[in-house]
Amino acid sequence: MEILFTFIPKEDQQQRLSTEFPEVDFHFLYKDKTRLPSADIIVTYGEDLMAEDIAAAQNVQWIMVASAGIEKLPHQAIAERGITVSNVKGIHKIPMAESALAHLLSLKRSLPLIYENQRNQEWNRRTRSSELHNSTALILGPGAIGSEIGRLLQAFGVKTIGCNRSGTQALYMEEMVSFENILEKLPDADYVISILPSTQETNYLLKRAHFQAMKKTAIFMNLGRGDLVSDEVLLEALQNEEIAFAVLDVFEEEPLPKDHPYWSMNNVIVSPHVSSHSGKYVERALDVFIPNLKKWLADQTVPANLVNMEKGY
Amino acid sequence: MEILFTFIPKEDQQQRLSTEFPEVDFHFLYKDKTRLPSADIIVTYGEDLMAEDIAAAQNVQWIMVASAGIEKLPHQAIAERGITVSNVKGIHKIPMAESALAHLLSLKRSLPLIYENQRNQEWNRRTRSSELHNSTALILGPGAIGSEIGRLLQAFGVKTIGCNRSGTQALYMEEMVSFENILEKLPDADYVISILPSTQETNYLLKRAHFQAMKKTAIFMNLGRGDLVSDEVLLEALQNEEIAFAVLDVFEEEPLPKDHPYWSMNNVIVSPHVSSHSGKYVERALDVFIPNLKKWLADQTVPANLVNMEKGY
Repeated sequence: MEILFTFIPKEDQQQRLSTEFPEVDFHFLYKDKTRLPSADIIVTYGEDLMAEDIAAAQNVQWIMVASAGIEKLPHQAIAERGITVSNVKGIHKIPMAESALAHLLSLKRSLPLIYENQRNQEWNRRTRSSELHNSTALILGPGAIGSEIGRLLQAFGVKTIGCNRSGTQALYMEEMVSFENILEKLPDADYVISILPSTQETNYLLKRAHFQAMKKTAIFMNLGRGDLVSDEVLLEALQNEEIAFAVLDVFEEEPLPKDHPYWSMNNVIVSPHVSSHSGKYVERALDVFIPNLKKWLADQTVPANLVNMEKGY
Repeated sequence: MEILFTFIPKEDQQQRLSTEFPEVDFHFLYKDKTRLPSADIIVTYGEDLMAEDIAAAQNVQWIMVASAGIEKLPHQAIAERGITVSNVKGIHKIPMAESALAHLLSLKRSLPLIYENQRNQEWNRRTRSSELHNSTALILGPGAIGSEIGRLLQAFGVKTIGCNRSGTQALYMEEMVSFENILEKLPDADYVISILPSTQETNYLLKRAHFQAMKKTAIFMNLGRGDLVSDEVLLEALQNEEIAFAVLDVFEEEPLPKDHPYWSMNNVIVSPHVSSHSGKYVERALDVFIPNLKKWLADQTVPANLVNMEKGY
């Protein structure tokens, strides 16, 4: 049994794997594809496998993606071979929810201005701080991450409205609305926060009319995928001050091009797709992978966090 | 009955007062002391009354301080006259707790670096973000504000240790320690957060040994009063990297002098005493003042939030 990691865990994490699975031959190789032909399992962040890599990996039966997004995998090549794909959905929930709260609280409590005044060595008490308390959030995609954001927001006294395809109840959401009826709830929201994956249904889901329906004081935060809204629509909403602020961790084009207007707009925060980053990330991925691998080795049980390559999540 | 406000509430707030108390003659005068001699009650932020103002205010029986700190009041002049003093303790708890969480989350989730990279138009994903989750906070002064900070930290999965004079149990604290025994708990804390008022007992409570006992990765946050620790001690701890970071909203000297080293230290956040700021501030102060004034007018009942000028809080 040979397992290829296309990224390099820390020494102690590699040790943890070898100790748990002495019978397995682990290869930790970043940007080195020489072990593809003999790998039975591939563990990847999901951005480095092309169709020709799948062809080369003639023995592979399981691809474990140590991230949530699978849209960069060569879907057809994988589906044709019937390769099992699993991900680590859920392990992002703590860092991403903390990032969401960090960004909202920072804006509400004037941290960008406080930092700027410090750079200018200026004792300026004219901050216009406000509060999360007694506001309303609309959360697009109240799954593992979205519900964790909802739980934390509720602790701050924020009303939570969840929005998913069908409008079915989700955890830590006081109300629900379906994608179809979202326009009805947008005028209530002080924050519109998306954690939606990229699927056919979420692709450019938000149009001009959605931003026009939001409060002029609304903060739009996208931690999901950049194709939820076109730059054209979002730029227009920001330039016309139809909303007050955008916090963007994902973009139509990543990296965000050097000359993109977002960089210098004072009502946009550009976060370079890092909201899930955490020192605990690989450790948590292994916490998902190890029990899955034990079962797989015992009786080829398919792993938890199985990904449906057709649905796209 | 004549009431002098030494700050100017908004039009609708002034209206609220006149409507509730048609029999009272309200004067809203910023930096204008002409009405002192005839005022029966003074409502102030507590920083603008000198001993001679108390002498001039020959009729005053009640000073309502629309803030928590009363250390700038002329204590002796007030005590000699037996003037009732009340404050609005508790109304800061929401904005201050949100500020505390904003600062911690911002540092944990790399917001200062994200903002800096945006200014440089640099797509830099090498953030070293970490999490509040599974860390420990030591809260000096777990009163109304400190307990609210504790409640929010617990929602993030942070262990809370409270520290007060006697070590008696406080809300939302998993453990307690007395001032006297604080050294025992400092090595456990990832954050040491003070909301202590300025009293004889809190004056320069933290000495060199306390910072040496903290984790090298600790964040020290002072939202209480600047005389909790001397600049000399804190600068030494920061320069020797005995702690990782200080978030300071209060200072030995305010405004912080232009040439103070804190301004340009990359392990210090200088916040110009604004952590309690909120657009809802005056409204909440009136929510405390109005029922107090109703009772006072009815039967001279002493107000809630009475301040003991000897204890200093």
